Amino acid sequence: MGKVYLIGAGPGAVDLLTLRAARILAQADVVFHDALVEPEVIALAFRAQKIAVGKRCGRHATAQAFINKRLVDAARKHEVVVRLKGGDPMLFGRAQEEIDALRASGVPFEVVPGVTAALAAAADLGVSLTRRGVARSVALVTPREGANERKSNWAEALAHSDSAAIYMGASEAATIAAALLAQGRPRGLPVVVVENASLSRSRRWHTTLAELPKLAAESFTGPVVLLLGEVFAASASSGRQSIPKTELSNVKSRRA
Amino acid sequence: MGKVYLIGAGPGAVDLLTLRAARILAQADVVFHDALVEPEVIALAFRAQKIAVGKRCGRHATAQAFINKRLVDAARKHEVVVRLKGGDPMLFGRAQEEIDALRASGVPFEVVPGVTAALAAAADLGVSLTRRGVARSVALVTPREGANERKSNWAEALAHSDSAAIYMGASEAATIAAALLAQGRPRGLPVVVVENASLSRSRRWHTTLAELPKLAAESFTGPVVLLLGEVFAASASSGRQSIPKTELSNVKSRRA
Repeated sequence: MGKVYLIGAGPGAVDLLTLRAARILAQADVVFHDALVEPEVIALAFRAQKIAVGKRCGRHATAQAFINKRLVDAARKHEVVVRLKGGDPMLFGRAQEEIDALRASGVPFEVVPGVTAALAAAADLGVSLTRRGVARSVALVTPREGANERKSNWAEALAHSDSAAIYMGASEAATIAAALLAQGRPRGLPVVVVENASLSRSRRWHTTLAELPKLAAESFTGPVVLLLGEVFAASASSGRQSIPKTELSNVKSRRA
Repeated sequence: MGKVYLIGAGPGAVDLLTLRAARILAQADVVFHDALVEPEVIALAFRAQKIAVGKRCGRHATAQAFINKRLVDAARKHEVVVRLKGGDPMLFGRAQEEIDALRASGVPFEVVPGVTAALAAAADLGVSLTRRGVARSVALVTPREGANERKSNWAEALAHSDSAAIYMGASEAATIAAALLAQGRPRGLPVVVVENASLSRSRRWHTTLAELPKLAAESFTGPVVLLLGEVFAASASSGRQSIPKTELSNVKSRRA
């Protein structure tokens, strides 16, 4: 019986993988990877069979059950099986369903944490998500609902935290803005939208809660994280970018 | 003029550092590190002068201003200056004050994100912080207040999120429990306390919100993260540990 490693691939840049993740990938016999994991990261598993599974979001339960089964089957044939997920496995990664399946089948496993997109985006921007006297709480949230999922309080979680990062929320921009305005958050609340955090093809937009629905006009090819909070007011006025505060402006990424 | 790298040292285990962080540390001329960063991580900066600065928490503003000045001074003398912080720099790391000082002095800088303690603790436990139908929001919070800091809504942020991780909260366990019970969270809400996540000397306790104040009887030497939420109910009953649900039990860490 082999072992299954649930590995965080990090935000995108290959050198933001952990040393442990890189070492295990190099030893892997087979890698089941999310569709959006960077090819350069997958290539580190130089001797492994590589299998793309699932989509980033909106996966059906049947598809997830099929992935679970393939992991268990692979552990019966191979020594080092890797399940490679974008960002960190334990945050919006559907890892629990796979872990439960591995436990139920008695397959040994280990989770290797990774750098999550919100922290990579904050690093790109040079803006801390927490700040003395301004922000001591950060909500990490997704508004996306599965087919049979109960409604939950994602908007309240956002409304009661000083800073927030929204995952898989680009297509829900209008819903998010309406929900947060209804919760009493100010129209001028700073929002930064970051696509492909940590990568050279990264794009970012500085806007406000009231203007956020305009994001619907953009199309995205990579993972998007929406960052909200007063801490980002300083970023817009820091002089690094010149952005009309009430306009949705596309600002090309640059490394600090 | 040199460059200052604000680097996330990750949760503790040296191989949970990113490839980028390891590469820059090996090139560093001088490293200013937090007191709680693991010696094995600091040792990667094999040719650098190593300077311990600050404490993990409760630092005074004057001490922070002194660190800011030392970073700027060092960049005038050295090519590669590293500011090494536990976990990720942009989360409870006081990074903004250092970034603002570097910007004000025209010192080039780059932030290298890291694996934050909450994600390492979740990996150790094999419990995802989000779970379909149970948790789609995670609050990252610290209840610790600086000297002149305004009160903020950390308890509300915790109360309105499905899952939560509390940083630097071990000494505030009674305050946290009282505040969350007052917000209407159930007495039996599962809590897992993890000290030294990712390290072989890691310790963990499975308890409930009502029993959390008993944590005051423990003493800690390493970083502690408190994890709260219904997702941890499954962990206590998964059979990996046998824990009386209403007792505060110290369970030795073991790798999955």
